[in-house]
Amino acid sequence: MRLRNKPWAGEYIESHPAIVEQDPEKWKGRWYERFGNEAPLHIEVGTGKGRFLTEMAKMYPHINYIGVEKYESVLITAVQRAVEENIPNVVFLQKDVSDLTDYFSPKELDRVYINFTDPWPKKKHAKRRLTHEYFLTKYRALLNDRGAIHFKTDNQGLFEYSIESMSKYGMAIENVSLDLHNSDIEGNVMTEYEEKFSNKGMRIFRLEARFK
Amino acid sequence: MRLRNKPWAGEYIESHPAIVEQDPEKWKGRWYERFGNEAPLHIEVGTGKGRFLTEMAKMYPHINYIGVEKYESVLITAVQRAVEENIPNVVFLQKDVSDLTDYFSPKELDRVYINFTDPWPKKKHAKRRLTHEYFLTKYRALLNDRGAIHFKTDNQGLFEYSIESMSKYGMAIENVSLDLHNSDIEGNVMTEYEEKFSNKGMRIFRLEARFK
Repeated sequence: MRLRNKPWAGEYIESHPAIVEQDPEKWKGRWYERFGNEAPLHIEVGTGKGRFLTEMAKMYPHINYIGVEKYESVLITAVQRAVEENIPNVVFLQKDVSDLTDYFSPKELDRVYINFTDPWPKKKHAKRRLTHEYFLTKYRALLNDRGAIHFKTDNQGLFEYSIESMSKYGMAIENVSLDLHNSDIEGNVMTEYEEKFSNKGMRIFRLEARFK
Repeated sequence: MRLRNKPWAGEYIESHPAIVEQDPEKWKGRWYERFGNEAPLHIEVGTGKGRFLTEMAKMYPHINYIGVEKYESVLITAVQRAVEENIPNVVFLQKDVSDLTDYFSPKELDRVYINFTDPWPKKKHAKRRLTHEYFLTKYRALLNDRGAIHFKTDNQGLFEYSIESMSKYGMAIENVSLDLHNSDIEGNVMTEYEEKFSNKGMRIFRLEARFK
């Protein structure tokens, strides 16, 4: 993702503490208090400009959503969406996915979405891929027993790698689609990236995976 | 695969007992005696017209190959190839893959190839897919600890299903290619089907999988 410098972004984000939680450690293990209800908790790692998460939040008002995105210059768009549309069940964290276990307790999550994240194609950067064992270990700790990862990408190499990484880790892979937009999977909410790539006729890959 | 009736096929096959073993139970656990050496043993299930297996056998003379194919009308072509080219390290069984454990002992195999087999697209026929749990259980019993399954198909639905089936079974999936002919995997030997579909510009999917 190309990152534009937006000097006003930091100030805007800080001025919306109801939407961007500045002190997520405080809510570890009790996000239900932050949301004021005990709805299932779904997070998106690398949430980018937030279209997917805000659309999901509007479509599923009885689920709580948290988007984790470290780059201010894209997160700002997500925050603007949530502010303008006044969506009560979405919160963002401007944080690094590596630190997830600082913000959530074991089994606190019902679902982790990974959508169109950086493929880090060089082998030496494999550890940075959000489906690397390093991250799977974190998701495993945080997802409850019904929990699953839902993963989409247009990047064939990242999808191939993720099948290998997840199966090696012992996960059961489910509902695989190697061409999502020509499949019978319903209710797909598109990210910005997904719409752009799909409109170019590129294939979108998708899977769900559970820890056993 | 379209099956043409070839009334002379049965007679031809029976007249080549060195290439088509008529009594494979006899060699269970001691195929190395049949081949006269202790080379690794690779089998192909649903070997069809046998181009893959005969090409592999010529390319890797220090590996022993057994092709299992129940339909006489296609197996005949495989047998003709092996006869004409006088390939010593390939044997065929005109048998049903369901009965594999009658012909091989536990851990007797080093590799199982599954190439372009019938996708059985209807859900009610899932048990017939050669990557169904029913068959994985057999391969697991027969493969040794270094053993792996190598699987190729042009059928997207079968490939999606197989990722799910194998990962659910606890297998580690490796060397995935979602577009084999545009990948950097080397030394690929094509089946008849593969060449035909690939020439039409269709994608070939491939993976390797190990039991853990």
